[in-house]
Amino acid sequence: MKYNQYGRINVGQADQIKELIALKFLPAEYETLEFSDLLGLLFGKLFPEQKTIGAKRQTLSAIAADETQSIFALIEQHVTEITQNNFYNVALQLLGYHAGYDYDLGNPLALFKEHNLPFLQANKINQENIFNAYYLLLSTRAKNGQLLIDHLAAKGYFVPWFKAEKPQFVYFNGKILPVFDTTKIIREVIYVESDLDTDHDGQKDLLQATIFRPQETEQNLRVPILYTANPYWGGTNDVDDHLHSVDENLTEIKENPVYRQPAPNLKEKSVPSTENAVPEETATRNGIYSLNEYFLARGFANVYAGGIGTYGSDGVRLCGSVEETICAKEIIEWLTGNRIAYTTRERTTQTKAWWSNGNVAMTGKSYLGTLATAVATTGVKGLKTVISEAAISSWYDYYREHGLVIAPVLCQGEDTDILAELCQSNFQQSADYLRNKPYFDKVMQALVAGQDRTTGQYNDFWAARNYRHNVKNIKCSFISVHGLNDWNVKPKNVYKLWHELQNLPIKHKLFLHQGPHTYMNNLQSIDFTDMINLWLAHELLGVKNGALIQWPDVLVQDNLQADTWHSEQTWSNNLGQATTYHLNNNQQLAKNQDAASIHSFEDVGGKQFHEMNISETEWEKQFLGGTKSWLDAQLRFMSEPLDFPVTLVGRPKVHLRVSSSLKKGQLSVALIELGRRSRLSAVPQVVDLNGQELGYHFGTESLKEFQPAHPTDFKLIAKGHQNIQNYANQRIARSVTPGEFYDLEFELQPTYYTLPKDTQLALVVYSTDQGMTKRPQESTTYTVDLAQSSITVYQK
Amino acid sequence: MKYNQYGRINVGQADQIKELIALKFLPAEYETLEFSDLLGLLFGKLFPEQKTIGAKRQTLSAIAADETQSIFALIEQHVTEITQNNFYNVALQLLGYHAGYDYDLGNPLALFKEHNLPFLQANKINQENIFNAYYLLLSTRAKNGQLLIDHLAAKGYFVPWFKAEKPQFVYFNGKILPVFDTTKIIREVIYVESDLDTDHDGQKDLLQATIFRPQETEQNLRVPILYTANPYWGGTNDVDDHLHSVDENLTEIKENPVYRQPAPNLKEKSVPSTENAVPEETATRNGIYSLNEYFLARGFANVYAGGIGTYGSDGVRLCGSVEETICAKEIIEWLTGNRIAYTTRERTTQTKAWWSNGNVAMTGKSYLGTLATAVATTGVKGLKTVISEAAISSWYDYYREHGLVIAPVLCQGEDTDILAELCQSNFQQSADYLRNKPYFDKVMQALVAGQDRTTGQYNDFWAARNYRHNVKNIKCSFISVHGLNDWNVKPKNVYKLWHELQNLPIKHKLFLHQGPHTYMNNLQSIDFTDMINLWLAHELLGVKNGALIQWPDVLVQDNLQADTWHSEQTWSNNLGQATTYHLNNNQQLAKNQDAASIHSFEDVGGKQFHEMNISETEWEKQFLGGTKSWLDAQLRFMSEPLDFPVTLVGRPKVHLRVSSSLKKGQLSVALIELGRRSRLSAVPQVVDLNGQELGYHFGTESLKEFQPAHPTDFKLIAKGHQNIQNYANQRIARSVTPGEFYDLEFELQPTYYTLPKDTQLALVVYSTDQGMTKRPQESTTYTVDLAQSSITVYQK
Repeated sequence: MKYNQYGRINVGQADQIKELIALKFLPAEYETLEFSDLLGLLFGKLFPEQKTIGAKRQTLSAIAADETQSIFALIEQHVTEITQNNFYNVALQLLGYHAGYDYDLGNPLALFKEHNLPFLQANKINQENIFNAYYLLLSTRAKNGQLLIDHLAAKGYFVPWFKAEKPQFVYFNGKILPVFDTTKIIREVIYVESDLDTDHDGQKDLLQATIFRPQETEQNLRVPILYTANPYWGGTNDVDDHLHSVDENLTEIKENPVYRQPAPNLKEKSVPSTENAVPEETATRNGIYSLNEYFLARGFANVYAGGIGTYGSDGVRLCGSVEETICAKEIIEWLTGNRIAYTTRERTTQTKAWWSNGNVAMTGKSYLGTLATAVATTGVKGLKTVISEAAISSWYDYYREHGLVIAPVLCQGEDTDILAELCQSNFQQSADYLRNKPYFDKVMQALVAGQDRTTGQYNDFWAARNYRHNVKNIKCSFISVHGLNDWNVKPKNVYKLWHELQNLPIKHKLFLHQGPHTYMNNLQSIDFTDMINLWLAHELLGVKNGALIQWPDVLVQDNLQADTWHSEQTWSNNLGQATTYHLNNNQQLAKNQDAASIHSFEDVGGKQFHEMNISETEWEKQFLGGTKSWLDAQLRFMSEPLDFPVTLVGRPKVHLRVSSSLKKGQLSVALIELGRRSRLSAVPQVVDLNGQELGYHFGTESLKEFQPAHPTDFKLIAKGHQNIQNYANQRIARSVTPGEFYDLEFELQPTYYTLPKDTQLALVVYSTDQGMTKRPQESTTYTVDLAQSSITVYQK
Repeated sequence: MKYNQYGRINVGQADQIKELIALKFLPAEYETLEFSDLLGLLFGKLFPEQKTIGAKRQTLSAIAADETQSIFALIEQHVTEITQNNFYNVALQLLGYHAGYDYDLGNPLALFKEHNLPFLQANKINQENIFNAYYLLLSTRAKNGQLLIDHLAAKGYFVPWFKAEKPQFVYFNGKILPVFDTTKIIREVIYVESDLDTDHDGQKDLLQATIFRPQETEQNLRVPILYTANPYWGGTNDVDDHLHSVDENLTEIKENPVYRQPAPNLKEKSVPSTENAVPEETATRNGIYSLNEYFLARGFANVYAGGIGTYGSDGVRLCGSVEETICAKEIIEWLTGNRIAYTTRERTTQTKAWWSNGNVAMTGKSYLGTLATAVATTGVKGLKTVISEAAISSWYDYYREHGLVIAPVLCQGEDTDILAELCQSNFQQSADYLRNKPYFDKVMQALVAGQDRTTGQYNDFWAARNYRHNVKNIKCSFISVHGLNDWNVKPKNVYKLWHELQNLPIKHKLFLHQGPHTYMNNLQSIDFTDMINLWLAHELLGVKNGALIQWPDVLVQDNLQADTWHSEQTWSNNLGQATTYHLNNNQQLAKNQDAASIHSFEDVGGKQFHEMNISETEWEKQFLGGTKSWLDAQLRFMSEPLDFPVTLVGRPKVHLRVSSSLKKGQLSVALIELGRRSRLSAVPQVVDLNGQELGYHFGTESLKEFQPAHPTDFKLIAKGHQNIQNYANQRIARSVTPGEFYDLEFELQPTYYTLPKDTQLALVVYSTDQGMTKRPQESTTYTVDLAQSSITVYQK
């Protein structure tokens, strides 16, 4: 178990003492104190819940400094120094560890080393170095993953600050502290006027925004904002019955339909008046992201807005469109004084974000992170940084691939129209529903036409939903987070964006974790929250803490060793060396090519899958795992067991010479690691349920980490899908003749994956992917010319 | 989907109006108002978050009363009545439903009927009946499962009450409302003096107790208490490496060892002084049970205490012992003024529970519920009722069965000593650890001797841990909750207790849900929380609301139909008729006996299981599902497919004539329903994540319910295990001769299970249960004389 830490900065001794005095750990006249008094004072401070000297004495008496005596016994003896072991025995208990279980009182440093925790190199702790040791301890991660100083905050250490006459941001080790009274947070709802009229009712759309801000803003504190554009904020409609059927045959594409993306319906921007009324509506919804809440306790306002078409807002959802980008951006314009907002939808009274310091960060995962990326590409003033997690960078890469309709995992039948309807939460106000539904239905028809599930081809509809076209406009710093096993928003979304961002003069950081479509702010193995604290203090509050160069540009979580992160300069094929494996006879995947022949498999579409009535997850487990009943529908190629571990980086590329028995066809390939062994769990496991406190009595988060699990037979590394009609051009479908061979070349999802010694690299070639592709009603025979087929991977 | 409701009481019209006026929904002079003004007023009240008339107008304008107009439009027209559909269209939106998705504006009542929601039978809603309709609506369950009035509370409706000069409990429909300011809850830690000296240090043990109480107690409010005796409250020790190995051969029992349970080490009780100091320690831990938190918002104090040996307390854990019962009871004595407590462990200053109204309820699940049961059997004064969920009633029924060591599911190797160590959280204070560890180790040796994993026999150690011996002392009312699929605390714990409680003059209610070892307060299909609210208002606050007879004594959740609950008078074999199935040749389970012969199977202990390196869960799925590789280690008997559904109730009983190839043996049987079909999910699925609000900005709970899941091949109905050496007497082991036949007769766990038409009832006879029994290192052949073997079930 390792508590890796990247967010702790080095601070000189003088500044350490200055900070300790400012935070009242040390009295100003600390130099006049005896060492033992200092010891009692400093350790006593760590128990703010003990309100009297007697209660503190009782507590310090229960903490062993070594095998024979408590720390209080040492204090009573008026010692002038204590041993390093004395200090760290006490420290470990403060950090939440248990003597006799987690550590041995004879050797506390063993645990510090094992858990990668920092400690002071000194045989004795005395008047000279106690400040360093204490400062370091406060900035050490406790067993619950949070800094000890945050644990103190949760116990009420900073309650006296809540009553400050002149509230201000307070820092420790370059990071912002929770010194604001979360029981008094002000919750407001206001209505920003958009320039858009997406429902074409002649009125500019109003955009509801929800604001959580510290009560201290009423005492002249001006605060930065964490803004999450969240289309789910207002709730969702139940669209389960509206999903597209995927149980249909592929269409033979005879010509690529053309789609013209209409321009947004924009009106002239209103000029703000001087009016600044008090909002008339109290927010009743709760924040949804623990990272945002953590910063709310630290004085940041949190702003959530659903955007056009969502609850309390006008307009219609236009999933992934420029209109969605515009309306998400307009909230920032109001936050920075450049746009008007009203107190109600009656549009009578204007209100201002007078409490804002003008600096905004956007956060969010999935669609929310997507909109953060989208807004960044507008270059809007005031947006200083973006933390974009598991975000779509092009909607074609979310719902399509290489000329095929390809669903995100467990989202079969979903598409832009379905997601639009799901998020059209202003329907929940029934009178709005009655008024908006007819026009909404028209818009949905346009989305259905544009998204074109018939051909699956790239067109202007998708081009308008590719944020990468506008990357050059990005002016803010940018943090990307993505799971290497995210089969919802697949990793090529972040991979391609990363490569575009490399060309810009902005600071860009990338985190690649081992999760699927999950947040990473609660992982045990990395102090993500602290890193973001450092980052936001720098970007939004101007603190000179070196955040931008504090950690490597790319941090990648290891897939074999728990709690291990790799530093990289980039993420690309160039990290490795191209290695080509040939598809040989006898199911061999080999660097040398044999006299391979031609092999066929018969795809039966969704037939067998429906007959078995199993889940998509179970299907993938059986199909890729090589269960006998599925072998007829695939070709499998396996390498020899590896002599040494191999790390694959970047995007594997396959070359398949293939024919179809029909005038159409879909090819799928999966690259897997074969071999029964214990692997890390697919999702992070709870290490400490609700063990992290976001502030003082203010919500919790659970510490989690990937942990070794029961043995499995294989692990998916990367997948790819290809429409056979796009053999010559990924954007133009051509006719194919049944039985004729075509050369398909396409890249799989990007990866960063280590295969351990003795496992096998395997490639599965198939057609219907029950969880992602359409499931034809007809059978198709695919024939692969192995001699002309191969896969190229990049090995590190 | 059904929102069944048992906790709504009938209130006469005059009282309804009185309540509506008291809660400020109606002005005192309501009779002078026009109907349309009343309508605007009443519906406007349901949006406390809208702070101005303009904002309320905006909101009511967005709610359709029918397909053409909003409710506000009707109000503006000065209507003198509205249609039933008008009212319930608005009502559904208030309850969280979506027009066009969940319901049709032309027929709102269809949803009321489908969801089992109450509505007023009246064509028109007018001045005469609007109060009834409105009152009923406030006490209707919203889509999130909570009452509409609780949803209003979450939106701040009762915030004005927070400032009451003379705080008091406020009721609606017989239930307590959240009118207390949860941001100001007082959190204290005190130390109750026990009469016990379990660590034999010559000093009476101090018991730490954590108190959460409304700030309003400082303004003379005296409050009832929800007390949870929670041995995990102070944290747990990591005992994973200390588990007993179950990979060992059975022991041939030559004589039953005798164990003498020592008497508790009790000292004289101290007499309270008049001193009543303010506590010196603030509580830093958080409540763990959403039901408790819900009542905290409603003015109940919550008290948590870990008991002897836990963090902050003296003493040692004696898992399941009378000492644990005593110390849990002593907290109540302090709460009712009959015991002293100190402000610190220094024992210098006494403090009293002056804020208590003297009425206590105990709550909790598993070990926590167990201690609630245990304390009830002391008859302690002040304990008015118990809500005991998934509780152990005899520790032998938790860790043993019929002469065998039988683990709770996923707890192989655990036993009383392990659980004791797990909960010995005063070890977390390292100086306490050093001081206590040597004596603790001695106590553990005594537990190991007493629990006797060698023979598995019942002895005085277990007799002392059988709370059913003291049932006659119970004086309080009693609510039992248990999952019919709880393989941790197995259902016979509650079944046997129920039968004992029947003989007492107390009110006892039983809930049997379809979950495993889970709470049920957040289920969609039943208003458990509201029922408990009614119950506690009656039992602890003396409200005459008819709670004790409001719902049937036994409520059982159906295993086939989601959202369905059955009413019963009791739970016993007598609900059904005894039906005997014979074990015939050709794997037949039949009511007629054929000329059945002798069949053998070979048990290989843990060998194959370990070789396969699979989880216990996966083993059970394969083994009971009839996977080929496991068939040699079992005998299977299957009925013909059922012609009609059959409900099994009570405890099936098997009779097996069996011989072992060794002088020892363990027999397991599992009764299963065979047949591939969609069944309800094993655990309740999240319907609305964090959708329930426990108060005003005060924690959330997720609405959950069992839902149809992907098909599975079988479902476990009941299991049982039997030591062959106990063939003649479950408490005395006898010698057995290899190859000789013995008649075993034993009951399985109790059940209430309906097998649908076309499925098969099946009995699996085997030996090693990888998840529960020891896993011998040697092979054993068991031979069953089918002609002399049968199973008797009770069919309803």
